[in-house]
Amino acid sequence: MAVGSTELEALLPVNGIAIGVAESGIKYKDRRDLVVFKLAEESVVAGVFTKNAFCAAPVVVAKSHLASGIDTRYLVINTGNANAGTGEQGYADAISTCSHLAQIAAVANESILPFSTGVIGEHLPLDRVLAGVETACGQFIEDNWLNAARGIMTTDTIPKGLSVQFEYNGEPITVTGISKGSGMINPNMATMLSFIATDARVSRECLQEILDETTSTSFNRITVDGDTSTNDSSILIATGQAKVAECTSHDSAIYPQLKQAIATVMLHLAQSIIRDGEGATKFVTIEITSAGTRKEALDVAYTIAHSPLVKTALNASDANWGRILAAVGRAGVPDLDVSKIAMHVNDVQIVESGCRAASYTEEAGSLAMAEEDITINVSLGRGDISDKIYTTDLSHDYISINADYRS
Amino acid sequence: MAVGSTELEALLPVNGIAIGVAESGIKYKDRRDLVVFKLAEESVVAGVFTKNAFCAAPVVVAKSHLASGIDTRYLVINTGNANAGTGEQGYADAISTCSHLAQIAAVANESILPFSTGVIGEHLPLDRVLAGVETACGQFIEDNWLNAARGIMTTDTIPKGLSVQFEYNGEPITVTGISKGSGMINPNMATMLSFIATDARVSRECLQEILDETTSTSFNRITVDGDTSTNDSSILIATGQAKVAECTSHDSAIYPQLKQAIATVMLHLAQSIIRDGEGATKFVTIEITSAGTRKEALDVAYTIAHSPLVKTALNASDANWGRILAAVGRAGVPDLDVSKIAMHVNDVQIVESGCRAASYTEEAGSLAMAEEDITINVSLGRGDISDKIYTTDLSHDYISINADYRS
Repeated sequence: MAVGSTELEALLPVNGIAIGVAESGIKYKDRRDLVVFKLAEESVVAGVFTKNAFCAAPVVVAKSHLASGIDTRYLVINTGNANAGTGEQGYADAISTCSHLAQIAAVANESILPFSTGVIGEHLPLDRVLAGVETACGQFIEDNWLNAARGIMTTDTIPKGLSVQFEYNGEPITVTGISKGSGMINPNMATMLSFIATDARVSRECLQEILDETTSTSFNRITVDGDTSTNDSSILIATGQAKVAECTSHDSAIYPQLKQAIATVMLHLAQSIIRDGEGATKFVTIEITSAGTRKEALDVAYTIAHSPLVKTALNASDANWGRILAAVGRAGVPDLDVSKIAMHVNDVQIVESGCRAASYTEEAGSLAMAEEDITINVSLGRGDISDKIYTTDLSHDYISINADYRS
Repeated sequence: MAVGSTELEALLPVNGIAIGVAESGIKYKDRRDLVVFKLAEESVVAGVFTKNAFCAAPVVVAKSHLASGIDTRYLVINTGNANAGTGEQGYADAISTCSHLAQIAAVANESILPFSTGVIGEHLPLDRVLAGVETACGQFIEDNWLNAARGIMTTDTIPKGLSVQFEYNGEPITVTGISKGSGMINPNMATMLSFIATDARVSRECLQEILDETTSTSFNRITVDGDTSTNDSSILIATGQAKVAECTSHDSAIYPQLKQAIATVMLHLAQSIIRDGEGATKFVTIEITSAGTRKEALDVAYTIAHSPLVKTALNASDANWGRILAAVGRAGVPDLDVSKIAMHVNDVQIVESGCRAASYTEEAGSLAMAEEDITINVSLGRGDISDKIYTTDLSHDYISINADYRS
C-alpha cells in the first residue's frame, strides 16, 4: 500500500469526455489494460513528453499527431508493453493502433494520440491491442475515470486520481485527472502517464502554458530512482463544454482559479506517484532554502534525493545526517561555505553552522526520521531562492520489485 | 566475500617504510583500527584528496601539512570514525593527533599527515586515538603491510593490497599498496583511502604527476553508489632507498616501468574496492566506444552505472537491456542518433542500430548476465573516443549493510 494514501473512491466525470476500458490480455489476463478516451469535438489538447533520446514509438507518433494541427478526438492507452526500443516495427504498430481506431470512429489518423507503458524492448501484441480497441470503443461511459485509473497501472499498487470542482460565474467547473507510475521516476519526467481534463473553455496556447507551468512544480519535481523513462507523457484536455468565456491568457478572469485547480490535481497526481514509489515506506520532501540560484537549489535537492546512502538511512529511520551533509558537499555548488549550512528534519534542527546543532539529540533525530512523512530542509545561506522536490526511501522491496519485474 | 577475489596472502615490504598497528577500541574492541606509517627521511610524498565541499578535518589538515614544504615523516590513520562534520572540535582533534605523534617522534607537527574513515558527524574519541598512536609507535615493523591493510578496513569484507616488483639496472624496485573502501564509492573519489609506496627515487613534482595520471584511470573510474565521501585520500610515497637515479620526469629512463608498476597496483586496488562493493555480487565493466568526446563517454557510462534499475537487473541476472538503453537515452548526449547504437554484454550482441539485434536470443542474454564478471559495451557511433568504468550491482545486502551501518 502506498505511503499515507487512502483508497481512491470516486472521480467526477468531465463534460465532454467518455471513456472505454477493455481487458485485452496484453501482458496479463483478467486485467484492465486498454483505455480509450473520447473527446468532445470542441476539445483542445496540450501535451508534454519525455526528453529521453530513446523515446518510445507512441511518443513520437503522439507528438507528431498533436503538432499536425488536426483536432485530437481520441486517446488510446495500453499498459503491459511500452512499445519502446522496438525500431521500425514499433512505429508501424503505434500507427496501426491509431488507424484502427480512426477507422472505427471515422476520424483522421492524426486525431488519435497513442500511449504505451510497460516492458521496454518487446513488440506490441498488435492483434490483442486492436481487439481491445474495438471492445473499449463499444462501451464509452462518462463516469468511468476510476476504471481508467486502474486500466493504466503497471507496477502501481493503487489507482491514482483526483477531482477538483470550483464555481465560476455560477457555473461549476470540473478538473479530473489520473496518473500512473511508481518506478523509473525522475524529472523530465517520471515513468508516468497523466491525463487531466477540464470542461472549461481554454485556448490551445493558454492550455499549453498552464500545462508547462504546472508540470514544472509537480511532475518535474519528483524522483524515485533517477531513471527517466522512454514513454512519459502528460496530457491536459479542455473540452469547452462549460458555459463560460474562453480562457485565453493570464489576464482572463477564470485563469487564476482554473490554473490553481489544475495545479492542485497535478501536484496530487505527482505526489501519489511518489507515495506509491516502488518499495516506498516514506514520503520525503526535500526543501532547499536560501540558495543563490534555482539551479543550485535543485542540484543539492536531487543529489540528496538520489543518494542511495541517504535513501537507505531514510528506510532505516536512521538520522544519519552525515550522509545528507556529504551529499550536499558533492552537489557541485561553487564555493560552498559549509559553515553557513543548517539542516532540519521536520521540526528538529540537526545541523547549524555546518556541524551538529548544540540542541540536537540522537533521540529527537530518530523520532523525526521515524515519521512516515519527512521533510528534510537544508538552508544554504547563500541567497533567497527556495525550491522543493519529493522522493522516497530505498528499501528491500525496491530491489525485489525490480529484480523480479520481468519474471 | 568480494566478487572474484582471492584471499590476500602477502605484501612485499618497501625499503624505508615501517608500520605500527594498534587496537585502540575507537569503535569496536579487539580490532586493528589505528595504523602509523613511518617514512625514511629521504621520502617524497604526493596526495590527491576528496573534492567534497564537506571534506573532513583530517583531510584539511593533511592537505595543509603536505603543502607546508616540511617533509612528511609519518602517516596516522584511524578507522571507526571519519572525524567529518565535526566543526572546530574536529580540527582540534586532528591537530592533537598529529602533535601527539610529533612529540613522540620528535619531528614537526607538519611532518604528520592524518587520515580518518568511518562514521560521519561524531567526535573522535581522542584519548583512545592518542593511546593507540603510542602503542603503534612502540612496534614499527617493515613487513607489516598486511596488518595495515586490515587496520584501515571499515565495512570492507577483505583487506586489499598488491605488490609489484620490477628490475631496473639490476636493482629490484618494489611498489606495494593497500586500500580500503566498499560503499560511498564514486569518482573524485571513492570513500576510500589508499597508500602506495615505492623505494624508487622520485622528485616530488614527478611523483604528483604520476599519482594524478594513475588516479584518473583507476580510482576516478569506479562507482558503487554515486556517493563521494568526505574523507577520500590517496597517497603515493617514494622512499628513495633503492640505489637508482632519481626519476624526475617523463624522460627519465626508469619512468615507463615505474609508472606502469604504480598504475598496475592502483588499478588493482580500485577494482578490489568494486569487487568488495557493499552487497556486490557482480563485477561490472561499463565500456563506451565510438563516443564523440570523453565527457559523453563518461556521462553515458556513469548514467548506466548509477541507474538503480540497471543495477537491480544486473543483480537478478536479467538481460533487461531496455533499462540500459533508457539510461543511454537520458545521459544528456546532444543530438544522440539512437539508430547508431550497438550494445554487447560480454560476447553477446543485444542491440544493433538502436533496437534488438536480429541474432539476439533471451537465452544468450541471460547466460551472459549470469556471469560474475560482466562487461557492458555500448557503441555510440559518433567518434573514436573510448573509456571504461567499473561498478557493481545493487542487492538486498546493500540495503541491509547501509540501513544497519550505525547500529
